Amino acid sequence: MERGHYGDDHRAFAELARGFVRKEVAPHYLDYEAAGIVPRSVFERAGELGLLGFAVPHSYGGLGVGDFRFNQILIEEFMAGDSAGVGLNFALHNDICTPYLVGLTTEEQRRRWLPGFVAGTLIGAIAMTEPGAGSDVAGIRTAAVDMGDHFVVNGSKTFITNGINADLVLTAVRTSPERHRGISLLVLERGMPGFERGRNLEKLGLKSQDTAELIFTDVVVPKANLLGEAGRGFEYLMGNLPQECMQIAVACLARARVALATTLEYVTGREAFGQPIAAFQNTKFTLADVATEIAVTEAFVDKCVLELNAARLTPADAAKAKLWSSEMEFRCLDRCQQLFGGYGYMREYPIARAAADARITRVYGGTSEIMREIIARAMTRP
Amino acid sequence: MERGHYGDDHRAFAELARGFVRKEVAPHYLDYEAAGIVPRSVFERAGELGLLGFAVPHSYGGLGVGDFRFNQILIEEFMAGDSAGVGLNFALHNDICTPYLVGLTTEEQRRRWLPGFVAGTLIGAIAMTEPGAGSDVAGIRTAAVDMGDHFVVNGSKTFITNGINADLVLTAVRTSPERHRGISLLVLERGMPGFERGRNLEKLGLKSQDTAELIFTDVVVPKANLLGEAGRGFEYLMGNLPQECMQIAVACLARARVALATTLEYVTGREAFGQPIAAFQNTKFTLADVATEIAVTEAFVDKCVLELNAARLTPADAAKAKLWSSEMEFRCLDRCQQLFGGYGYMREYPIARAAADARITRVYGGTSEIMREIIARAMTRP
Amino acid sequence: MERGHYGDDHRAFAELARGFVRKEVAPHYLDYEAAGIVPRSVFERAGELGLLGFAVPHSYGGLGVGDFRFNQILIEEFMAGDSAGVGLNFALHNDICTPYLVGLTTEEQRRRWLPGFVAGTLIGAIAMTEPGAGSDVAGIRTAAVDMGDHFVVNGSKTFITNGINADLVLTAVRTSPERHRGISLLVLERGMPGFERGRNLEKLGLKSQDTAELIFTDVVVPKANLLGEAGRGFEYLMGNLPQECMQIAVACLARARVALATTLEYVTGREAFGQPIAAFQNTKFTLADVATEIAVTEAFVDKCVLELNAARLTPADAAKAKLWSSEMEFRCLDRCQQLFGGYGYMREYPIARAAADARITRVYGGTSEIMREIIARAMTRP
Amino acid sequence: MERGHYGDDHRAFAELARGFVRKEVAPHYLDYEAAGIVPRSVFERAGELGLLGFAVPHSYGGLGVGDFRFNQILIEEFMAGDSAGVGLNFALHNDICTPYLVGLTTEEQRRRWLPGFVAGTLIGAIAMTEPGAGSDVAGIRTAAVDMGDHFVVNGSKTFITNGINADLVLTAVRTSPERHRGISLLVLERGMPGFERGRNLEKLGLKSQDTAELIFTDVVVPKANLLGEAGRGFEYLMGNLPQECMQIAVACLARARVALATTLEYVTGREAFGQPIAAFQNTKFTLADVATEIAVTEAFVDKCVLELNAARLTPADAAKAKLWSSEMEFRCLDRCQQLFGGYGYMREYPIARAAADARITRVYGGTSEIMREIIARAMTRP
Repeated sequence: MERGHYGDDHRAFAELARGFVRKEVAPHYLDYEAAGIVPRSVFERAGELGLLGFAVPHSYGGLGVGDFRFNQILIEEFMAGDSAGVGLNFALHNDICTPYLVGLTTEEQRRRWLPGFVAGTLIGAIAMTEPGAGSDVAGIRTAAVDMGDHFVVNGSKTFITNGINADLVLTAVRTSPERHRGISLLVLERGMPGFERGRNLEKLGLKSQDTAELIFTDVVVPKANLLGEAGRGFEYLMGNLPQECMQIAVACLARARVALATTLEYVTGREAFGQPIAAFQNTKFTLADVATEIAVTEAFVDKCVLELNAARLTPADAAKAKLWSSEMEFRCLDRCQQLFGGYGYMREYPIARAAADARITRVYGGTSEIMREIIARAMTRP
Repeated sequence: MERGHYGDDHRAFAELARGFVRKEVAPHYLDYEAAGIVPRSVFERAGELGLLGFAVPHSYGGLGVGDFRFNQILIEEFMAGDSAGVGLNFALHNDICTPYLVGLTTEEQRRRWLPGFVAGTLIGAIAMTEPGAGSDVAGIRTAAVDMGDHFVVNGSKTFITNGINADLVLTAVRTSPERHRGISLLVLERGMPGFERGRNLEKLGLKSQDTAELIFTDVVVPKANLLGEAGRGFEYLMGNLPQECMQIAVACLARARVALATTLEYVTGREAFGQPIAAFQNTKFTLADVATEIAVTEAFVDKCVLELNAARLTPADAAKAKLWSSEMEFRCLDRCQQLFGGYGYMREYPIARAAADARITRVYGGTSEIMREIIARAMTRP
Repeated sequence: MERGHYGDDHRAFAELARGFVRKEVAPHYLDYEAAGIVPRSVFERAGELGLLGFAVPHSYGGLGVGDFRFNQILIEEFMAGDSAGVGLNFALHNDICTPYLVGLTTEEQRRRWLPGFVAGTLIGAIAMTEPGAGSDVAGIRTAAVDMGDHFVVNGSKTFITNGINADLVLTAVRTSPERHRGISLLVLERGMPGFERGRNLEKLGLKSQDTAELIFTDVVVPKANLLGEAGRGFEYLMGNLPQECMQIAVACLARARVALATTLEYVTGREAFGQPIAAFQNTKFTLADVATEIAVTEAFVDKCVLELNAARLTPADAAKAKLWSSEMEFRCLDRCQQLFGGYGYMREYPIARAAADARITRVYGGTSEIMREIIARAMTRP
Repeated sequence: MERGHYGDDHRAFAELARGFVRKEVAPHYLDYEAAGIVPRSVFERAGELGLLGFAVPHSYGGLGVGDFRFNQILIEEFMAGDSAGVGLNFALHNDICTPYLVGLTTEEQRRRWLPGFVAGTLIGAIAMTEPGAGSDVAGIRTAAVDMGDHFVVNGSKTFITNGINADLVLTAVRTSPERHRGISLLVLERGMPGFERGRNLEKLGLKSQDTAELIFTDVVVPKANLLGEAGRGFEYLMGNLPQECMQIAVACLARARVALATTLEYVTGREAFGQPIAAFQNTKFTLADVATEIAVTEAFVDKCVLELNAARLTPADAAKAKLWSSEMEFRCLDRCQQLFGGYGYMREYPIARAAADARITRVYGGTSEIMREIIARAMTRP
C-alpha cells in the first residue's frame, strides 16, 4: 500500500539524505560507536548539504521549510543506512531544538544563533531531566536566580543527548517556586564559566550518542539568553510536546521497518534443519505479525505527521503516537531479533544494535507511563 | 483527531441508519436474541429505507452506490445502537453477497434476484465452510454433478450466517476434482427439493444471528443458477476476499469504539473504595491503551476502506486489516469487560454481549492463522 | 512429572467422585445448564456419598477430613467430567462455607446446621458482594440493626452463587459504621420473612449455576444466627481468604488441564490442508506453551495446597495462586479454543463452554486487580 | 513461602559461595566486563575453595557431591553478588562439562583431566554450535576423519562460552555422514596445532564472558581424546540436555529474583511527582505480577531440580523449565527495567546489565522455538 503522504520534493530530499548517509556516515558509523560520539565535522558537512535546521527561515540561512515530513524522511534514511545514532542526534537538533530557537527567540537571538545552528557549527541540545526528577518536568530544581541583568544558575541535568557536543543548551530552570509557573528556559552556551559536562554515560545502546550529565555552578547567564518570557517555560515545553512525540514516533516506526527488511532477508537466506528459516510456520507468523504492526502504525503516524503540519495535533494524540510506536517497535524488534538466534546478540549484526538502541524509546521523551497519563487525562477530564 | 474520510453524504446516511436502529431495531433486539433469529420483516423494512443492497445499480432497484464507506457507516450505527447481530446480518447481505450478485450475474439473474435482494424479500447467504474443511476453502467436498442443463448437488455446509432466513445461498461446490480449479459457485434457492437446513446452532454470542448447517441431498440446481463460469469459484472467492476482510475489520473497529465509550461512562460513574473507578491508575492506563489501539487501528482501517474503493487493496493488506482489527478488538474488549467486574459477565450488560460476540471474529471469515499465512506468503514469495 | 502430593486415600476418593460424576451428573449436565440450576436432589445424592462437608467433624455427620487435597480432587473430577458448574456449586458449599460453619459456630449452631449441610439438604451460600460495592468488602452497606435479641436486616446482595438453592446464607452485614470493624456475619435462612431472591441472573457461562440477587427487607434474624462475634466479620472473611483463593486456583488449573487434553485429542484427530492440525508448527507451539503453563502452575498450586493444609499459606501467596491460575487459565483456554476454529464457538463443544465459564475467574472471589493490591501491599509495607 | 528444598549443607555452601563472590569477585567484576574475560586466577581460586567440579568423585580431587542443588546455589550467589558472568562461566564448567567428563571418560582420561578440572587449572568448554547450523545439532559439519589412532579435525564452531579461556573443549564432530549417528565427541586441548581461536565476540551483554569462534585446521586429535563411543555423540548430548536446561532455568530464576529485590529497593527509595514510585498503582501491579511470576516459577524449577537429582527429569519437562524460566525472566526484567526510567539504560546500574545479559537466555542452550518443538513432540508422538 502506498504511503501517499510524500510528494516529489520529499522524494528528492530522501535521495539527498540517502547519499549522504551511505557515503559519508555509514562507512564510519562503527567508529563513532567506538568513540561514543559523532565528530563535529559530521554536523558541519550535514549543514553544508542543508540537512540541519531546514525549518529555519531563509533570512537566517535555513530553507524555511516547516514541513515535518522532511524531518521524517531524514530519520528514515539514517535508519535505513544503519546509522541510527547520527540520525537521532540530528533529530534532536532539528526536530526538538528548532521550534524553540525559531519560535521563542528575539531578532537578536536569531541573528546570533540561527546561522551557526543551520551550518552545524552550533550544535543544540535540550536539558530538562534532572538526576532526581525523571519524567516529572514540573519538579525540576535547577535554580536560576534573577540578578537584574543576568541569572545565576546552579544545579544539574542528566541524560542529555548531544551533551558533550552541544554549544547551545536549551535549559529548563526554576526561576520561582511555583510548580508549573516557576519554570523558565535559558540558553546556556559552551564556554560559560561554571558550566561543566560530566562523563559520557555508558548506555546499553545508542553508542554513538554522547549522553552526559551537565553541572551548573554559579553560571552567569545574561538575560539576553532567556527564551521567551520568564515563568512560561513549562507552557513552552508542553507546547512542543506534540512535535517531540512525533520525532520519536517516526524514528520508532522507521527502525521497525528496517528491522523487518533485514530480518526478511536473513530468514530467506539461511537454512536450519534443511530448509530456509522463512519456511517455518513460526517464522512466517512472526513476519506477518510484524508486517501488520508496521502497516497499522504507519497509517497512524503518517496521519499524525500531517496533523502536526496543520498544527492540529493534540498532545493526547501525539502521546498516542509516541506510546504506540515505541511499544510496537520494542515488540517487533524483539521478535525479529529472536529469529536471528545467537547472531541477534552480537553487536556486529545491525539487528542486535537496533534492538539495544530501541530499548530506550519507551523511556525517553516521556515514559510510556507518562504518555498513558496524558492520554487518560484527556479522556476523563470534564 | 477527525477521521476525515466521511463527507456529507455519509453523515446523512449515518443519520438515517441511526434513526432506524434506535427506533425500529434496538427496542426489540433482546427479543431477537431470545428467538435466535431476526424476523424477515426487519430486512423488508430496511429494504424500504434503502439500507440493503445500495451498491446494486438503479436499474435493479438499488442506489448504485459502490462506496464501501456506506457499508462501514451502517455497521457503525448498528454497533452504536447495541444491535450488533442485526448489523452483521445486513453486512453479510450487503458487503458479502452483493459483489457476487452484481459482478458475476447474467442479465437474467440480475432481473430475477436483485430487486428482491434490494427490497429485503430475498435474503442472501454465502456457503463455503464444510463440517470437515474449516478455513481450507480449496478442500471442499460438496459435489455438483453436471447433468447437462442442471447440476445435482450433494453435501453439507456449516456455520452459515443467515442460514435459516436465507433465500439465496451462494454455495461453493466442487464440479471437478482439481483442488482449486474444480470449484464453482451455485445459487441454491429456498424451496429447492433436497435443500434442508439443520438446527439453528447455539453459539457463545451473536445470539440474534441464525447460524445453521445446510444439507443438500440430490438437489437439482438449474444451470441458470451458476454464478460466473464453472471452475472459477475459487478465483471468485479470493477476488472478494479484500471486501470480506474489510467487512469484518470495520465491524471489529466499530465494536471496540463503542465498548470504549460504554466503559468510559461506566468507570466515571461508579465508585469503589471511595473514589470513581476512573481515578485508579490501572483504570486510566487501561483506557489510555484501549483508546490508543483504537486510534491506530482506525487510521489503518479507514485508509484501507479508501484503497478498497479505489480497487487497489491487495489481499495481503486486507488480511492485515482483518487480522489486526479482530485481535485488537479482542484485547480491548477483554480489558474493558474486566473493568466492569461481575457486571461484565451478565448478559444484560451490553459489554458482556459485545465480548461474547467478539470471540468469533478471530475465526470467521478466515482465522487469524489463515490471515497470517496470506500475509507471509505475499512477503516471502519471489 | 508425577504430581506427588496425592496418596492412596486421595486416589480412592478420586475414583469415588469420578464414578458419581460420570454416572449421575454428566449425563444430565446439559439439562441443568438449560434449567439454569442444579436440582437439590444432586446435592442430596452427593451427601449420601460423602462428597459434601467432609471437613465437618464426625460428631455432626462429616468425615472430619480437613485436608484440602480432597477438595482439589473433587473439583478436578467435575472438570474432567465436563460438569464444571456442579463442581463449583459443591466447592462453594464445601470449600467456602465449611470453614465458617465449623470454625465460627456455637455447639447449638453446629447441631442445628451441620448434619443437614453434610447431607446436602441444607445448601450453603455466602453473601458478600453488593450491587454498589464490588470487590470492596469493607464498603458494604446491608444493615443489621441490633434489637436486643435479634437483628433487623435491610439491604441487598448480588452475584450470589447457589443464590436460588441456598438454605443457609452466610451474610456479611454492617452492624456499626466503622469501615472494617463494623461488619458482622449472620446466617440468613430460607423462609425468613422479608428474605427474597431476585431472578436467576443470565451469565455468559457457568449456565448451570444459580446466581442471584438477594433482597432483605426488615428480615428478623435471631442473635442465635450470628457467626462468631459481632464486629469481627471482616477479620473472619480475610481469615478465610487463603482457602477461598485456593478453591478458585485449583479449579482454574483443573479446567486448563482438561482443556489441553480435549484440544490435544481434537488437533490430532482432525485434518486441514491435508494434514492433522497437530502437524502445524503453530499448533505444536500452542500445545507446548499451554502444557508448559499448566506444568508450572501445577507445581505452585499443589505446593500452596500443602501450605494451606499446614496453615502456613499467607494471604499474599494465596492471592498469587488465585491471580496466576485464573490469568493462566484464561490465556490457555483462549489459545485452545482458537485451535477449534468455528467449533470453539458452539456451545455443544465442551471447549466453548469451558472458555465461557472461565471468563469469570479473573473477577469472582476478588478481581485480579484486588489480588495485585494484596500482593503488592505485602511487599511494600514496612 | 519457604522454598523447602535446601538443607543445612546447602545453606553452608551458600555462605561459602557468598563470601567468595562478595570479597573476591564482585569488587573486580566491572574490570572483567571491561576486559571481556575473567582471569584464569579466579577459576583457580574457586578451585581452591571447592567451588568447581564438586560432582567429581573424591578420588580425582572432587567432593563427590552429585546434587544439583549445589549448582543452583552457586549461580544464585553469583547473581545476588552482581557477578552474573562469572557465575555462568562456572556453571558452564560445573553443570555442563562435568557430566561428560565424569560419565563418559575412561580411567586414563579421568586421571589426566579431572584433577586440573577441579582445581580450576583446566577450564572446560563445550563446542556444539557451528556458524551455519544454529540450534540444529544434528546438522553439524565439523569433520573428524578417522586415521587409525587419531582423528584429523577440520571445521569451526561459534558462540563458544569460555572460548578464549578453555583448555578442554568438548567438541561435537562428524565422524560419519549419518545425520544423528554420525556425531562423536572429542576433547580438543589447548595447544593442539591447528586449533585456533577467533576474536572474543562483542555481545550485547554478558560482557565478562569470553565468547569466541573456534577454528580447526587439520587438528590431530588422538583417539585417547574420544569421549565414550564414536557415533554416539548425539545421544550423549541429548542425555545431558535435562541438566543443561536446568542450568539455564536456575540462572534465569535467580536473575529475576535479584532484579525484583533491586527494583523493590529502588521504587521505595525514589520519588516522582511527590510520592515514592512504589506508591503508584502501576508500580504496585508490576511488582505484584513479577513477584507472582517468580513464585510460580520457583515452585516448578525447584521441583525439577529434585527430579533431576532423582534422574527422573524428562527432556520435555526440562525443556519446559528452560523455556518458561527464560521467557519469564525476560518479561520480568523488562518490566523491572522500565521502572528505573533512564537509569535502567545506563550500564552502571545493575538492572541495565542484568536486562542485557538476560536477552540471550531465550536463545542459548536451545532457542525457545527448539524447546517448544521438544515439548510438543513428547505430546503428539504416539
